[in-house]
Amino acid sequence: MIKEAIITDLQRIVGKENTLTSPEALKAYSYDGTTSWIEEPDVVVFPTSAKEISEIMKLANAEKIPVTPRGGGTNVSGGSVPIQKGIVLCTTKMNKVVRIDKENLSATVEPGVVLQDLTMMLMKEGLFFPPDPQSFLGATLGGIIAENAGGPACVKYGVTKQYILGIEVVLPTGEIVNLGGRTLKNVVGYDLLHIFISSEGTLGVITKAELKLRPLPQARKTTMVVYDDVSKAGEGVFRVLENGVIPNKIELLDNWVINRIEEMMPMGLPKDADAVLLFECDGIPEAVEKETEKIVEITKQFGAVDVRIAKDQAEADKYWLARRAGFAAVFGKAKTVMAEDVTVPRGKIPDLIKICKDLAKKHNVEIVVLGHAGDGNLHPAVLTDITNKEHYDRAVKAMDGIIEGAVELGGVLSGEHGIGLEKQKFFSKITDPVVVNMMKNIKKLFDPNNIMNPGKIWD
Amino acid sequence: MIKEAIITDLQRIVGKENTLTSPEALKAYSYDGTTSWIEEPDVVVFPTSAKEISEIMKLANAEKIPVTPRGGGTNVSGGSVPIQKGIVLCTTKMNKVVRIDKENLSATVEPGVVLQDLTMMLMKEGLFFPPDPQSFLGATLGGIIAENAGGPACVKYGVTKQYILGIEVVLPTGEIVNLGGRTLKNVVGYDLLHIFISSEGTLGVITKAELKLRPLPQARKTTMVVYDDVSKAGEGVFRVLENGVIPNKIELLDNWVINRIEEMMPMGLPKDADAVLLFECDGIPEAVEKETEKIVEITKQFGAVDVRIAKDQAEADKYWLARRAGFAAVFGKAKTVMAEDVTVPRGKIPDLIKICKDLAKKHNVEIVVLGHAGDGNLHPAVLTDITNKEHYDRAVKAMDGIIEGAVELGGVLSGEHGIGLEKQKFFSKITDPVVVNMMKNIKKLFDPNNIMNPGKIWD
Repeated sequence: MIKEAIITDLQRIVGKENTLTSPEALKAYSYDGTTSWIEEPDVVVFPTSAKEISEIMKLANAEKIPVTPRGGGTNVSGGSVPIQKGIVLCTTKMNKVVRIDKENLSATVEPGVVLQDLTMMLMKEGLFFPPDPQSFLGATLGGIIAENAGGPACVKYGVTKQYILGIEVVLPTGEIVNLGGRTLKNVVGYDLLHIFISSEGTLGVITKAELKLRPLPQARKTTMVVYDDVSKAGEGVFRVLENGVIPNKIELLDNWVINRIEEMMPMGLPKDADAVLLFECDGIPEAVEKETEKIVEITKQFGAVDVRIAKDQAEADKYWLARRAGFAAVFGKAKTVMAEDVTVPRGKIPDLIKICKDLAKKHNVEIVVLGHAGDGNLHPAVLTDITNKEHYDRAVKAMDGIIEGAVELGGVLSGEHGIGLEKQKFFSKITDPVVVNMMKNIKKLFDPNNIMNPGKIWD
Repeated sequence: MIKEAIITDLQRIVGKENTLTSPEALKAYSYDGTTSWIEEPDVVVFPTSAKEISEIMKLANAEKIPVTPRGGGTNVSGGSVPIQKGIVLCTTKMNKVVRIDKENLSATVEPGVVLQDLTMMLMKEGLFFPPDPQSFLGATLGGIIAENAGGPACVKYGVTKQYILGIEVVLPTGEIVNLGGRTLKNVVGYDLLHIFISSEGTLGVITKAELKLRPLPQARKTTMVVYDDVSKAGEGVFRVLENGVIPNKIELLDNWVINRIEEMMPMGLPKDADAVLLFECDGIPEAVEKETEKIVEITKQFGAVDVRIAKDQAEADKYWLARRAGFAAVFGKAKTVMAEDVTVPRGKIPDLIKICKDLAKKHNVEIVVLGHAGDGNLHPAVLTDITNKEHYDRAVKAMDGIIEGAVELGGVLSGEHGIGLEKQKFFSKITDPVVVNMMKNIKKLFDPNNIMNPGKIWD
């Protein structure tokens, strides 16, 4: 419990109206998108400038009070849960889009801007910011950068770090620094910018960011490809890519997910399919047309049993709504869902799917496969019930097997969710101790008193 | 001068045949692409494995001997000059392409692979590695990564760091570590990979890299756009981009460069033009056609006096040969050429050109402008003669003005060449001391005895 005097100091810095200590408020800021961990902070503050954040950090550093930065709180690895109590520093009142620079194809934003709000503003200017985490309706840019968020569109456009030209960040010791800049090319000393991207809020508070944008594609086209064998769907992904077609999205839904979606809201998905792939191409209309033709040709050649090109945007929207409904379908059907975020080299997707199937059989649990097949980032989910110890233990073993299998295939533990609290057990097990030590030393360098989002990434 | 016993140890590690100490050899490894600095090492070694490099580093670290890593030696900021003598560690015998993975669109390479060799191998597989520094005929992948090299194609494809999925690196203390991986998405602790990319060989020796590839474009088309005012050419760049067309390359040649090229080898460039822009579009044939039409339309609308679409690849090749000849033309026409690498937000290109023109007038020196206009990375060059002190002093003042001007426009000191020895003066002046200190602390962390390419980036 922090001292009353600290609360008074915080009130002085950000104003009384921006300092919350009521039990309801503390409860509201005690969890994130996982809902697996709950811990109430001592106080929640809503600073409105980098200067205020600097003052907060200096105070917290002097008093050794944990500070957990938070935006929309939509993250799914426990990253914004104040596990060691202290201060939750919420950036949602710093939500200005400072500048949209059409000439430079860039935008300057504050960390509390919600992705969807930015997307709508950019659309009016004929621009877009490619990273598209599926929490876009609530996720804020600060968190998107801190977690290096992904999403379906990474197949063609890459992940968040490829769209961050520069940031302003407040260090745990209170200094305000600018890293990177406003240009596409920038080789001026060590790339400190990227150390902060995906640092999960453990190294500082991002207070401004310069985003790289792209012109809004003129056309989009969605194709649904149906398979009677999910492994063939896995192969379909890299067959399309190796033939030189790079769609904007390639998503996979397996039979179980398809049927749960159809139960929730009938969409016309093929219920007897073992899996479907959803492709979206975007760009100049002529290119989109050509790429879509090529997808039809290649997937038919490599084992698809049916291919449907969405006849218009309304039909396309239906498929993508189904895709987003996929997660809801999974989470609604079991008491406990262990959803993972493993990523493998794209050619290994059929192997990963086979591993999941074998593990489901071996441990007698339901394993559902959906996710961003186009970049090898699947979200296999094990359905279980944490109150049924015997079943839950089997589910844990199955999940351990999935992660070990993915790593053996040349993959990684997390593609876009981060380690947070959720994957610490695996992180320490899988990562080279020399590398972990390098990371910990950097943490010590920037945050000598370990006040910045403590307890995350490693135990 | 290092002890004889050290040479014997090195011979034991890499073999006698891979240890050079003859005066001719030491001279050959005493300079880089700048030729502005010359310093002979004590010994040159050619290791053939990460294990050998690890042993070399342990020896050098124990004995506190400087180690300067080097590949093709084509870099242009003094980065591979062994300014504090010691060991030059040359990676050119580690030149295997270990794997080309078509399914994952990736390749595993050793650091000594020459970019052009890789390009030829990938072409056979219908693939390419986008970064294209103009030293591609000699530049090796290790150096390309260590300098985060750019090139003309960055307008559409981005810089080297966007194509490195993972590296194996030998630390100055001898540990061999793997950073990153083989997947597109990867959020597993701090992004140490990017600290090594653009670290200019000061943090470790890259011994293997996993490169992200793209399918080879099916079509290309080159368009030359002629302007009677170089500032209008600058404007042309962002007018094209803001209209949603992203060519692969947009290069600028000013009147002076055009005329020197035509003197060297008549190419049919318009000698009375104040500037030309060269555009290349690549991709699916239909899209390339459409984008080229759009470039013609937009540039005519914004002040172009003539637009020529290359009728075939032969004509296109001629223009691109002219572009590459541009640098030779500049360097052949003055005793001393101060060539810079500043980068500004794209919309600021006309302002940067104006600054160059004003400085040329003010200091009565010739300033030539060419470079990668598409990403704001210009290479303004001041022509002078280092033996004529009075003229040289004026040239230095003009160059200082260019750099200050670029930074004031929101730009950076170096877009793709790195700081090395060449830009140290400006680096310290322009970079926030807090940030420099963060960088120096990371250097100390990884290289406690300062043996790894010492004397670079900062004094």
